[in-house]
Amino acid sequence: MSRRFVLGIDFGGTKVALATSAADSVDRPLRKMRLPTLGSEGAQQVLRRSLDAARELADWSGTLQAVGVSTFGVVRGETVQLAPTVPGWEGLELPRLLREEFGETPVAIDNDVNAAAAAELRWGALRGVRTGLYLNLGTGLAAALVVNGMVVPGAHGAAGEIGYLLSRPGEPAFAEGHAPLEEVVSGHALAHQGSALLGRTVSAASLFEQDGDPAVRTLLDGAVEALAMAVANVCVVLDPERVVIGGGLMGAARHILPGLTAEIARAVPFPPEITAARFVDDAPLYGALALAMTARAGGPA
Amino acid sequence: MSRRFVLGIDFGGTKVALATSAADSVDRPLRKMRLPTLGSEGAQQVLRRSLDAARELADWSGTLQAVGVSTFGVVRGETVQLAPTVPGWEGLELPRLLREEFGETPVAIDNDVNAAAAAELRWGALRGVRTGLYLNLGTGLAAALVVNGMVVPGAHGAAGEIGYLLSRPGEPAFAEGHAPLEEVVSGHALAHQGSALLGRTVSAASLFEQDGDPAVRTLLDGAVEALAMAVANVCVVLDPERVVIGGGLMGAARHILPGLTAEIARAVPFPPEITAARFVDDAPLYGALALAMTARAGGPA
Repeated sequence: MSRRFVLGIDFGGTKVALATSAADSVDRPLRKMRLPTLGSEGAQQVLRRSLDAARELADWSGTLQAVGVSTFGVVRGETVQLAPTVPGWEGLELPRLLREEFGETPVAIDNDVNAAAAAELRWGALRGVRTGLYLNLGTGLAAALVVNGMVVPGAHGAAGEIGYLLSRPGEPAFAEGHAPLEEVVSGHALAHQGSALLGRTVSAASLFEQDGDPAVRTLLDGAVEALAMAVANVCVVLDPERVVIGGGLMGAARHILPGLTAEIARAVPFPPEITAARFVDDAPLYGALALAMTARAGGPA
Repeated sequence: MSRRFVLGIDFGGTKVALATSAADSVDRPLRKMRLPTLGSEGAQQVLRRSLDAARELADWSGTLQAVGVSTFGVVRGETVQLAPTVPGWEGLELPRLLREEFGETPVAIDNDVNAAAAAELRWGALRGVRTGLYLNLGTGLAAALVVNGMVVPGAHGAAGEIGYLLSRPGEPAFAEGHAPLEEVVSGHALAHQGSALLGRTVSAASLFEQDGDPAVRTLLDGAVEALAMAVANVCVVLDPERVVIGGGLMGAARHILPGLTAEIARAVPFPPEITAARFVDDAPLYGALALAMTARAGGPA
């Protein structure tokens, strides 16, 4: 009998990552692969190339038991929504297309941040946590809520989409095409605003290293202040025991965490502990593997 | 064999209400009773008089199968917290004292707003809802989150305590003895501010009838605006299918709901439906009966 394994696929805005794993562990994935998304060329080619890669990986690995898939956007029923990055991805019937590809093999699918939270729950900083919050500070801004030890999907797959939070009554919001908090706090927003401010292209990470510049300092202070209020408010609403923070901006943790921690300590009746995520690089890929492990066990996906 | 029944007790800041019920229905409680809290005389006498009343009710009703209790404050493990209204209630070991009183009979206890949400889930506007929000606009301001068809307690019993939400970064918050949103939006706050404004004692409800006065209008607009942003933000975080609103201020619904509904429609990617609660008067008492029904069935309390 050939070795039994699960497959994880993470559809990201710039790359698609795949991995197979035989054991319920992240220490020794059997094999990994990555390919560029080439989003501007449309959803169909992303999916086709990714499934080609999945078949190639699977041929190497043995008997496929379950597939876990993470994607940008939110998964609502039979389609992906809130996913403008790749033309055609929004509205794509990803669950059906994956079922057609993988036949009887169980397939679990969730958005990238929920998947990353699933990896933290299974193998990382949310292990054993009943009520928790996973916060992704990356190119975008989103969170995952954990209740009863499981990620909360929400009624339309959109729980935790904190990029849409308002900081001021009446400010431009979702219906006007905005994601108000994400436009202030995310890696993308900071890079954009920082580049405009300095007259040259800078990344959000490099911006945090230039906070000796008063104008940069003001920009970053405003972002951290808005983030801190929002996360404190989410903690007031959810009353988590732990907040786990991941995503690429965690490289600037020493610039972000003090303000965040102070506001949570001040505003939340029972302040949660705040810790770094275990998974930073490839968090949604490990999330996809975690979804596959759960689907293999027949549990909730 | 005598008739089997459950007992509900609601400990409120101004009154304690009790009811017994034989059927899993709210149409025909066997008997109701209420007594003044007399909070200034301390926690011990409230509890003693209430348990005396409970015994009297029980003697009338038959065989006691389960007890449900709702209380102001939050129930955290073996004590009640965030309950300054009655001296000695905060820190009271209510669960233990109730177990001593009722012996082997199952006792379920939760805060008043979570209990009211349990009544809406069992018999009212949250029936069949998997992901929902119950909002109590009353003397105070609080909410209950529903996930998987059950009220979310949070890690310390404080989930949904939205009176502590911040509207502005850095505003005085919990650690400084404040409940920032409740101080702007609750019935207590509006009565207080309205009375100061008009130079005579007015209730929040009557204030909404005087919104021809520009100063009153400004006060109320500010409150509704702050409430609308906060509730829209909670909906962004939770992604509920339905928001159910109860509490005494719902008498002013036509002044509150339009602004609330508009902000939710604007800010939330998938706007939930918004409906009035089934239970207004005695909502936490019906909640206590709902908790008792669940405890009788051996379910989660």
